[in-house]
Parts: sequence; structure tokens; C-alpha cells
Amino acid sequence: MARDAEDTKRRLLDAAADEFAQRGIAGARVDRIAAAANANKALIYSYFGNKEDLFDAVFNALVVDTVHDVPIDASDLPGYAGRLFDRNLSRPQALRLAIWHSLERGGAAALPEAVTVANQGKVEAIAEAQERGEVSRTFPAGELMVLITGLSIMGSSELAMTYPSDVTERRRTVTEAVRILTQGDKS
Amino acid sequence: MARDAEDTKRRLLDAAADEFAQRGIAGARVDRIAAAANANKALIYSYFGNKEDLFDAVFNALVVDTVHDVPIDASDLPGYAGRLFDRNLSRPQALRLAIWHSLERGGAAALPEAVTVANQGKVEAIAEAQERGEVSRTFPAGELMVLITGLSIMGSSELAMTYPSDVTERRRTVTEAVRILTQGDKS
Repeated sequence: MARDAEDTKRRLLDAAADEFAQRGIAGARVDRIAAAANANKALIYSYFGNKEDLFDAVFNALVVDTVHDVPIDASDLPGYAGRLFDRNLSRPQALRLAIWHSLERGGAAALPEAVTVANQGKVEAIAEAQERGEVSRTFPAGELMVLITGLSIMGSSELAMTYPSDVTERRRTVTEAVRILTQGDKS
Repeated sequence: MARDAEDTKRRLLDAAADEFAQRGIAGARVDRIAAAANANKALIYSYFGNKEDLFDAVFNALVVDTVHDVPIDASDLPGYAGRLFDRNLSRPQALRLAIWHSLERGGAAALPEAVTVANQGKVEAIAEAQERGEVSRTFPAGELMVLITGLSIMGSSELAMTYPSDVTERRRTVTEAVRILTQGDKS
């Protein structure tokens, strides 16, 4: 693809990320995305397909970025949870798209490929750390992954039922909870 | 208020709960709510105000119902977390409205009165159990409340980033995590 086309595609993905993060799937408007990217609407259909396809492309790209920027370190899961916590606060788009996906498409909807791949990688890393005796075997690796990623969003305003707390205290709560849940019986 | 008016109001709240749970605030249509309740649209404005006010009325009513049906038992927080987990699965409307509220209004938006009151009651119950020496003091009562309610939604398809697990295993993960986080240093 020519450089111009790559540039346009990148601008469209960035504009779509903003639009979907703010308004979700039903509320997003393809015209608004095209206008924000200073591109022709027809290019969206040509590059990505329909609005649902575009959402999937954006969601996948955001998940790939997150996994790249915040790789799991199964030898230090409290530290990993803290970095995910920071990421969800500083760049909440991936989290917001994940929640829109669940709310609007329902729980039975398939997760984007990138999420499945990312989850599998995390579970394998945790299972290996359990085999090395570094992480408690109280929970199966898959359940521990769910606990850690779930706890890491508890500072985010995207998640309801928060309770007043300054961000430093909430971060300490999250990392300390992960520390407690991953120590214990390692035999 | 006459019994007919009370009946109509109840039908409107039920229809609005369905509509908001499915479509959120921006996506909900007042005409659809009126039609589903077999009532005149003007009655909605007369009883509740505008669409935002109606959302708040529904959200408040759902939270009051949840607190009534699933009261906190600070002497058995793992059991309480399990019952909240079950509630979020069997009647997800309150959770869905909480998430729509956060996503659409943003984290700075005030929570409905019923949520604030419910949270305060839970925090006080946990603090008293800590003073009785029944619950660990590792976390302040407010942070522990956030951990418990946050963990209780981890079986819900409304929350993203779930990982394949049968519901029995996920429930065990949640109650066991709460057990581990609430034992420990009680001095």
C-alpha cells in the first residue's frame, strides 16, 4: 500500500477509536469518523468494511497496542496489575471498547482475535510461573488472569460502583490484592 | 395517588428498565417505553421528567431492590459476594444501568442517591466487622467494599475481558478471592 494510503488508514483508525470510545457501536457515525480523519467515507468501506467491521479493526489494534506497551510479567504479577491500572487510567480507549462490545453485542459475542490471543498468552505465562513455584496454585491460571485483569480496572471511571478514593490509594489496593491472591500455596 | 396511577407508574418503570438496560441512555426512546407500558408518553414527563430523570428514577429503584434482596452480611463477606454474583447473573439490569451510567455520563457524574446510600451502608457494616475482629484490616473498609463488589461482577457477560469458565468455577473463584482478602491480619 502506498504511503498516502497507509497514512489515511491510520488517521481513520485513530478517528474511529475516538468515536467508538465516546459513543459505542450504535451511537458511532461513520460520517463523523470520515470527517474527523479528513477522508472520504467510501474509503472506510473499502479499507475496513461496515461499521461493525471497523469497530473490530479498531478494537483489535488497541488490544495489540496494549499488549505491546504493557507485556505481562508473571514473575511480578502485582507490578503487572499496577501497570495495567495505570494504562487503563491514562489510555482508557481499549477498556471502553471492551465494555461497549460486551454491553452492546452481549456476552455471547465472540471476542476479537487479538483479545483471545492476548488472554491465551497471559494464561500460559501465569501457568509457567505456577510451575516454577513463583505463583500460588490456589487458583487455576485462567481464573487468576481474570482476577488480575478485573482488579486492574477498579480505578477506572469506566467501571461503575467506584467509591471515593484517591488514585494512589486505589492503586495500592489493586496491587496489594494481587500480591495476596498470588502468594500462598505454591506447592 | 390512585391505584391506577400507581399501576401505570410501575409499568413505566419496568418498561424503562428494559429499554435502558438494553440500549443505554442515548439509545433509549421514550416513545418505545410508553408503548411497551401501554401508557401515554406525556405521563412519563409528568411523573418522572425528561429521559435523564427517568433513567435516574429507574437506576435508583433497581439499586434499592438489589440492596433489599441481597443485604450485606459483613460477618460472611464471601457468602455475600456469592449472592451478589448470583444476582448479577440472574438480574443484570442494575449492573447494566450502572455501566451505562459510567460510560455515557463519565466518571465525574454523580451517582444516584440510592447508590451512595447503599455504598455508605456497606462500608459501615464492613468497618464494624473489622472492629469486632471478624474481618482483616489489611484494607480500609471502603477499599474492601470496592474489591468485593468489583469481584462480584466477574461472572457477568456485561463485563469485558472474561475468559472461558463455567459459572460454578467462576463463582468459586470470586468467593475464594473474597475469603482470602478478608482473612489475614485482624488485629
